[in-house]
Amino acid sequence: MICFQCDYAEGCHPSILNALTRTNFEQTSGYGTDDYCATAAKKLKELCQAPDSEVHFLVGGTQTNRTVISSILRPWQGVISADSGHIAMHETGAIEASGHKVLTIPSQDGTLSATAIASLCESYFTSGTQQEHIVQPGMVYISHPTENGTLYTKRQLEDISAVCRQYRLPLFLDGARLGYGLTAQNTDVTLPLLAELCDVFYVGGTKCGALFGEAVIISNPALTVGFRNMIKQTGGLLAKGRLLGLQFDTLFTDNLYFDICRHAVEQALQIRTAFEEKGIPLFMHSPTNQQFPILTLAQREALDTQFVCEFWEPASDDRQVVRFCTSWATRDEDIATLISAIHALEV
Amino acid sequence: MICFQCDYAEGCHPSILNALTRTNFEQTSGYGTDDYCATAAKKLKELCQAPDSEVHFLVGGTQTNRTVISSILRPWQGVISADSGHIAMHETGAIEASGHKVLTIPSQDGTLSATAIASLCESYFTSGTQQEHIVQPGMVYISHPTENGTLYTKRQLEDISAVCRQYRLPLFLDGARLGYGLTAQNTDVTLPLLAELCDVFYVGGTKCGALFGEAVIISNPALTVGFRNMIKQTGGLLAKGRLLGLQFDTLFTDNLYFDICRHAVEQALQIRTAFEEKGIPLFMHSPTNQQFPILTLAQREALDTQFVCEFWEPASDDRQVVRFCTSWATRDEDIATLISAIHALEV
Amino acid sequence: MICFQCDYAEGCHPSILNALTRTNFEQTSGYGTDDYCATAAKKLKELCQAPDSEVHFLVGGTQTNRTVISSILRPWQGVISADSGHIAMHETGAIEASGHKVLTIPSQDGTLSATAIASLCESYFTSGTQQEHIVQPGMVYISHPTENGTLYTKRQLEDISAVCRQYRLPLFLDGARLGYGLTAQNTDVTLPLLAELCDVFYVGGTKCGALFGEAVIISNPALTVGFRNMIKQTGGLLAKGRLLGLQFDTLFTDNLYFDICRHAVEQALQIRTAFEEKGIPLFMHSPTNQQFPILTLAQREALDTQFVCEFWEPASDDRQVVRFCTSWATRDEDIATLISAIHALEV
Amino acid sequence: MICFQCDYAEGCHPSILNALTRTNFEQTSGYGTDDYCATAAKKLKELCQAPDSEVHFLVGGTQTNRTVISSILRPWQGVISADSGHIAMHETGAIEASGHKVLTIPSQDGTLSATAIASLCESYFTSGTQQEHIVQPGMVYISHPTENGTLYTKRQLEDISAVCRQYRLPLFLDGARLGYGLTAQNTDVTLPLLAELCDVFYVGGTKCGALFGEAVIISNPALTVGFRNMIKQTGGLLAKGRLLGLQFDTLFTDNLYFDICRHAVEQALQIRTAFEEKGIPLFMHSPTNQQFPILTLAQREALDTQFVCEFWEPASDDRQVVRFCTSWATRDEDIATLISAIHALEV
Repeated sequence: MICFQCDYAEGCHPSILNALTRTNFEQTSGYGTDDYCATAAKKLKELCQAPDSEVHFLVGGTQTNRTVISSILRPWQGVISADSGHIAMHETGAIEASGHKVLTIPSQDGTLSATAIASLCESYFTSGTQQEHIVQPGMVYISHPTENGTLYTKRQLEDISAVCRQYRLPLFLDGARLGYGLTAQNTDVTLPLLAELCDVFYVGGTKCGALFGEAVIISNPALTVGFRNMIKQTGGLLAKGRLLGLQFDTLFTDNLYFDICRHAVEQALQIRTAFEEKGIPLFMHSPTNQQFPILTLAQREALDTQFVCEFWEPASDDRQVVRFCTSWATRDEDIATLISAIHALEV
Repeated sequence: MICFQCDYAEGCHPSILNALTRTNFEQTSGYGTDDYCATAAKKLKELCQAPDSEVHFLVGGTQTNRTVISSILRPWQGVISADSGHIAMHETGAIEASGHKVLTIPSQDGTLSATAIASLCESYFTSGTQQEHIVQPGMVYISHPTENGTLYTKRQLEDISAVCRQYRLPLFLDGARLGYGLTAQNTDVTLPLLAELCDVFYVGGTKCGALFGEAVIISNPALTVGFRNMIKQTGGLLAKGRLLGLQFDTLFTDNLYFDICRHAVEQALQIRTAFEEKGIPLFMHSPTNQQFPILTLAQREALDTQFVCEFWEPASDDRQVVRFCTSWATRDEDIATLISAIHALEV
Repeated sequence: MICFQCDYAEGCHPSILNALTRTNFEQTSGYGTDDYCATAAKKLKELCQAPDSEVHFLVGGTQTNRTVISSILRPWQGVISADSGHIAMHETGAIEASGHKVLTIPSQDGTLSATAIASLCESYFTSGTQQEHIVQPGMVYISHPTENGTLYTKRQLEDISAVCRQYRLPLFLDGARLGYGLTAQNTDVTLPLLAELCDVFYVGGTKCGALFGEAVIISNPALTVGFRNMIKQTGGLLAKGRLLGLQFDTLFTDNLYFDICRHAVEQALQIRTAFEEKGIPLFMHSPTNQQFPILTLAQREALDTQFVCEFWEPASDDRQVVRFCTSWATRDEDIATLISAIHALEV
Repeated sequence: MICFQCDYAEGCHPSILNALTRTNFEQTSGYGTDDYCATAAKKLKELCQAPDSEVHFLVGGTQTNRTVISSILRPWQGVISADSGHIAMHETGAIEASGHKVLTIPSQDGTLSATAIASLCESYFTSGTQQEHIVQPGMVYISHPTENGTLYTKRQLEDISAVCRQYRLPLFLDGARLGYGLTAQNTDVTLPLLAELCDVFYVGGTKCGALFGEAVIISNPALTVGFRNMIKQTGGLLAKGRLLGLQFDTLFTDNLYFDICRHAVEQALQIRTAFEEKGIPLFMHSPTNQQFPILTLAQREALDTQFVCEFWEPASDDRQVVRFCTSWATRDEDIATLISAIHALEV
């Protein structure tokens, strides 16, 4: 079986294993205070053109979302998110467990609009009465790419950022799959743009070539206070922090991160094209590494003989949405096999 | 400089890097549902002679302590711990952040006595009045080896377990350095004994040869309910869970875990003997990989020219307690160099 | 101005002030361990025909909801509620602050259907995969009367209770306005029925004649463990607990609670009839003490000259929903004045 | 039996019942937005000579401590307290339930010294290393009178305040029995002094003549942000908030609060003198309404025939510490009876 189910089925890019092996017996200080973390942080700050930012390395996405959000919000505040946001759906209530409501806004494609955020804020902050009975919006969470594979444009992010600053709400961008977003065709979103528009965001490693790890970039200095304490308290301060530094150092040497993600996106677009050519509808127009065809049960069964994909949600009548993911590890020959199989489907 | 500061200064035992490299391109399911986790769990259950237990793999110690404790306690309960316990001292209030008080009992050497636990419980459960104004003891936390390198005997653990069962308090043993405890000379504590006496305990990987990882063994079936949900919510469910399975599978193949830990303990005892021969007092009589000499300032300075050790606490007059750690990675030639330097100290 | 804005604008039924004055210098033990609390609890248990239940007295509704819910749920669980539920809307995230997600189900009239609950539970408990990534339904919260003034029938409650028992979810009924529900015309819901179908519910005092206070009746003995500890921890254990006992003792002597609530409901129906006769539409068909006419701006302004009502929500075009409340304290002459004013409105 | 067990055994000063009765049918807005709350707040601000402070009314002490402390601390911070502090001992872990560790300092008499606070802060803030592994001191909690009836002097409070400001730690004073402290003989602590030295403190009602209620005075404007939201979320925002306003308005009219508390202190000193004259030792030299004689078992039994006192703690050999409390409600004839009984004790 060839697995297209997710983008974390394999280990990591071989360069990372090489780096781990090469440095294995070096002795470094613990908890992210080593030179590899310092080097990786320096590279990320340079790529973001954000010399005054702080970079912290955490192990996984849920941990990162929970740590960042609970370090920012005051107890009476909640975080605004699309209802499809990872924090709203698939993190077992980690945000609520830290004491905060996720204030969800319905979203068709996984993105959040500046207008919707503004409307929610206006309703709270200008109503004048009974504000203390309702959860106060305290920050905004968006993901890029979204859980549906879609992307924001520069203009959309500028609009969201403007609303956030109007209401003094920190903007947090979940970049678990950021590599696949930054390397999408025609995107005008860059690392320096994110550092400018967001107060804090992260560059995902787990799904983009690392064994594990997410690099949090805090560009708003007000949000750095106590952040390492929060990482420790939440259980995310890796004793051998250098494992994170080494991985990000490797990924951001010689453009590796961008090269491997770009390749995965190109592979995903080949899959998308194959479905489109076949006339099979797509649930989302995703320009990134996740593709969501709407299959008939017969089509699903046909593909299931060779491939693993992920059930996403039921569609109308006898169809269902499924997800095919590529990753830094996807082999071109597996893409070719899949495309042949798609071409062979009955429609 | 030769680092004896801690037992997490290097990467991991080379066999683990080999295993990661060998399996790197295999595709496995995520979140610990893969075969490597299953195999590692099976080995651990066999070693513990606890076929009905459940094994879960987490990333680090603070995360494990927080996840286990908050999965067990009800909101009005706290966890009994020695005042030197890691959860009481060095985890940034992670237990309190999950809503629970750490009920500390003073301890000289890091161990908790059955008598002291019984006394605290008797005072709470038999006082009859105003119980609802005081935090209810809900479980007991001990570490083995303790933070001071000391060990419980089989008899002491049996006594603690008996008190815990009398008051229906789950017993949780933090085994972050368990390898160094199980391989100490003359210990009568074994994995099957722990599985029998504890409700839940963990076998530490991070400090005992792994890159990272702690294997939680839940022998009380009542405590398994919802445990995976808790791991996810706390941010400890590694997407590429196989990294944990592979590491523990490797460590528990051909006695590797025991062999490397035993060697580190033997090295530590050589250090201890060197200090003893020199007439330099030891803060604790530690039979494990951590040794705590009480040095004069001059002795400390002399050693600081070649070695890194960790300041532990001030001692009376101009002396201080420091910690020397060995680990699976400590080289025999570095031990020899240290022993020579100890012999050369002025006393 | 005559206030119909809410049902907590006045003090309390005079009998309660008499009781407080009569007993003022008696010395009683604290924290609800006094005889008045015991007597009141006994009366409530008899009225509920639930001799094995436990009765506890708390001060207010948000406090009661938070204490009950957080005493029941395990950390990875959430509470199912209508999206209009008080806990979902107007309690500043008190449930989330205690660590739990409110799992909302859309509701037209404020009630929750057994079908919708069953559907949510089936989706969670029978999906088989990835349950640990999603908040587990752990109990069900309903209010009766609902926040919209509507009522469940006996049959609806039986159906909900059956679903809850199928999935082993405790059923909690918020009775902040229960008096107005129990005395509505044609209702077949009684205290014994609630004690039978719910695991825990409360009889509201604050909005039904008391100065303050809610009487929690726990009919499921499994839910009584630690409940007083939770009340204390949440800050709801009144030092002079007898104030609560005295109030509920008074309200449940000689049918006072039922008599005063029934009268308020009758007054509310007169208001409803007046609007209906005038052809003014009602947002909800409420058989209880809250009425929700949909007024034009001109109508609102006309009524604002004499009366205070509460803005509820905007309606289509230039209309808005407002709320008129009666209470145990509403005077018949004020009702007459309001009805005249309604009759005089331009339509 | 005459009860000297606590200072909350009776209802309230009759003037309060009169005020409640007189205003019972007035209609006021809810949640503390009424005129009575405004008037009471104005009086308190004038008495404190703190026109820029904010005054909020809550129902009870545990609720107030929890609300204030959790509104101030960031997640990685704890609150410094004497180990005898109410928050450390008798509030069922309410502070921990809100996520924060209570950082206790041993205390002989219930007071906290500026030196001890400074030492703890210096150790944390100047150690330079591993701060993120330890709970950060975030504020200081003291009670006045303490749980042992003792008082701070002006000088001691100035010293504590100076340390707090040096380390930027808000100082919070629990005044559950403040009336008995302000009216003690020879005290130089006044309301304006507290408003100047503390960032937030409260004037206790429950134990000082009210049915219930605590008036929180926030003199540091930075701490007012979101405070009403916190009160609501914690379940302390009384729907009929005027009940609190009316009580404090009454207590602070014509010096009532001070007069009734001074009388109770005078009564307590008569009890103290009686014990002293008898040669019976006192556990604490308390100048306030709580007295702590150390009785033999025979003496305890003799007094138990007529009076209720509270067991405090065992003393050496066959003696125990007990507590006798007076209050605004204590009758002079009961004091006389007690003093006769003390005189009649065998020593």
